[in-house]
Amino acid sequence: MDLARSPLARPFPELPRIGGVTLRVACARYKEWDRADLTFAELAEGTTIAGVFTQSSCASSEVELGREQVRQGHARALIVNAGNSNAFTGYRGREAVDQIVQQVSAALGCSAETVFVSSTGVIGVPLPKDRARAGVEAVLSAEPCSWEDAARAIGTTDTFTKGAGAHAMLGDTRAALAGIVKGSGMIAPDMATMLGYVFTDAAVAPEFLQEMLGRANAATYSCITVDGDTSTSDTVLLFATGKAGNTPLASWSDAGADAFFAALLQVCRDLAQLVVRDGEGAQKFIEIAVAGAASDDSARRVGLAIANSPLVKTAIAGGDANWGRVVMAVGKAGEPADRDRLSIGFGGIWAARDGQPLAEYDEAPVAAHLAGEDIRMDVDLGVGDGRATVWTCDLTHGYISINADYRS
Amino acid sequence: MDLARSPLARPFPELPRIGGVTLRVACARYKEWDRADLTFAELAEGTTIAGVFTQSSCASSEVELGREQVRQGHARALIVNAGNSNAFTGYRGREAVDQIVQQVSAALGCSAETVFVSSTGVIGVPLPKDRARAGVEAVLSAEPCSWEDAARAIGTTDTFTKGAGAHAMLGDTRAALAGIVKGSGMIAPDMATMLGYVFTDAAVAPEFLQEMLGRANAATYSCITVDGDTSTSDTVLLFATGKAGNTPLASWSDAGADAFFAALLQVCRDLAQLVVRDGEGAQKFIEIAVAGAASDDSARRVGLAIANSPLVKTAIAGGDANWGRVVMAVGKAGEPADRDRLSIGFGGIWAARDGQPLAEYDEAPVAAHLAGEDIRMDVDLGVGDGRATVWTCDLTHGYISINADYRS
Repeated sequence: MDLARSPLARPFPELPRIGGVTLRVACARYKEWDRADLTFAELAEGTTIAGVFTQSSCASSEVELGREQVRQGHARALIVNAGNSNAFTGYRGREAVDQIVQQVSAALGCSAETVFVSSTGVIGVPLPKDRARAGVEAVLSAEPCSWEDAARAIGTTDTFTKGAGAHAMLGDTRAALAGIVKGSGMIAPDMATMLGYVFTDAAVAPEFLQEMLGRANAATYSCITVDGDTSTSDTVLLFATGKAGNTPLASWSDAGADAFFAALLQVCRDLAQLVVRDGEGAQKFIEIAVAGAASDDSARRVGLAIANSPLVKTAIAGGDANWGRVVMAVGKAGEPADRDRLSIGFGGIWAARDGQPLAEYDEAPVAAHLAGEDIRMDVDLGVGDGRATVWTCDLTHGYISINADYRS
Repeated sequence: MDLARSPLARPFPELPRIGGVTLRVACARYKEWDRADLTFAELAEGTTIAGVFTQSSCASSEVELGREQVRQGHARALIVNAGNSNAFTGYRGREAVDQIVQQVSAALGCSAETVFVSSTGVIGVPLPKDRARAGVEAVLSAEPCSWEDAARAIGTTDTFTKGAGAHAMLGDTRAALAGIVKGSGMIAPDMATMLGYVFTDAAVAPEFLQEMLGRANAATYSCITVDGDTSTSDTVLLFATGKAGNTPLASWSDAGADAFFAALLQVCRDLAQLVVRDGEGAQKFIEIAVAGAASDDSARRVGLAIANSPLVKTAIAGGDANWGRVVMAVGKAGEPADRDRLSIGFGGIWAARDGQPLAEYDEAPVAAHLAGEDIRMDVDLGVGDGRATVWTCDLTHGYISINADYRS
């Protein structure tokens, strides 16, 4: 199926060069297509790594291995296979991953545990080892490529390439960050919810890198949903090559730690929102800001209950300010809420306050807001100080067409 | 919007007369329509009652009042308003309910706490008190009507009338049960998930009636989902008039208790499945049997994770035996599961066993099964003895049309 480019797509941005990172792509032909589908990021010696992975109890071999490997904190290579997720493939799936790790570590002369592998695509078909072997052989000697080439090669049903970058001053040293991401369906927030890779030339100790990625993930990747379905392969990795030459960051009190985290948060937020903008069938991008919750976590859960409600998502698709459905979604979230203190607004205009429709509520400006592509919803629970913002898209005929009419 | 009759509809059955129950309907015109939308069930003195209600934290005034009233265990009247749920309407909503209760209890000369009220329809608009008063006035003196008339009058977006009946031998006494139900959207299992009313002429002590209804609910109404969205008004009430003349049932050791429970379970299961058969846009009825779970509750949660997955529901809509999406849904359920022991089948044919696709798997008979209207899915987690069966429908363009194209 040839999918039309999402109407919510953004152009691929100019991304900074990251010292110590070389990207290459090749055609492994994991599916019957003529496109690069194997991506290789070679990382300088000394690169540290952090990672967050799907919470699925049926995770792929790649995820299981990645969870173990990330603990030792260093990386020399990343391989991403597109077109076959290698999930639910038993021992044959694990053999294919081991083969790739051995082949790459032998070529680079590095430890096997510093070679990370991700795969994305069809579930239940073992990754073909012969194609993987030939593909890795080809990619090891391929010419270096651009960020956008790599972003395209890791994609599957994505309708546009997705990247984000930022800079941060670490004392007197300017560090750069660049990231790419893929994902459009089977997107739900249970840590990472797609494949995302962020690279920086900053020097950061692995434990602190992991702490920062965990925090950034909680406020970004874990705050998006397309369909509430959590993938078996979700992975976000953060690589720090240290080539910027700063004194390695190791704690929040180090100079530049806050600036680096702010830049990381920005890149992660941009990437996460781009995934929502490529949500299957999406016609509208929806930001849901929840305030007045018992805690920030509670606010996030309420926000996701709204964002995952098919009745809310179809109402937005139809341009309908149906706050009754928002009340329903708040009610089913199972979080502290008080019907008689609940307020709901669209596009900055309250439709209901303190549990009742507003007498002076004028639907015309709200309808005009909902006719646009970028929708803002405000929900105030009125029971505490917790707040969170989540992002999702609408649920349209396009989603049904992609997932029901198309035989995978 | 005029909705076409569900292709999964069932004809309204012959239902037994229940001594001590008189049904009447009237036109309150809660919406601009010409149809009966106010239902009154008058119950003989001595009728006991049990009830289960939505777990929504934004429940309607009717639900809040019903939860309190049901504790005293007796009922003389049920009023059901259709077209306006009276939810999220603050003190004005409560005033409307109180008015109805006062009006009916004065007419019958009974205690206010034995008059039960349910409302279903639009959220956020206070029930108009003048229309309610005139409607109740009319219904109090209306001619008695049939089960099907009452089933039609409690409906909103339902495309067919839904009822179920059964008999049970209580020692030498033959008791009868008859029930009606409404619901097609905003259906998710969090106790009752629609409006359902079951009447019996058996004599049953209120505490035991509540215990049996709770058990029956857990295996029936709580095992269905259309869209994972939980209503603010869900209510199931069970009335026992005692007119059959049996020695009142008060415990599981009483003669006939098991038989009565079996009949109640059957009626509740029939009614719950009829709601799924009227699921918005439904083209296929899906039964998901989960075995090998850590517990029965765990099996139910896994079953509902599958049943609520938009990717699974759209795959079934497309006739696609996409067990990879089932693996995903099992993985996201957050319940004990082992990827390498998981088995998945359709129509009685295993597609994957013990974590791997079957080499001898023949898709042809599975495709033929999925082309039908009644779909059976088997999932064995391989980790324990827990089992549960849940019911849902597919997710189609019809769901989007009903909920996005239609402005409520």
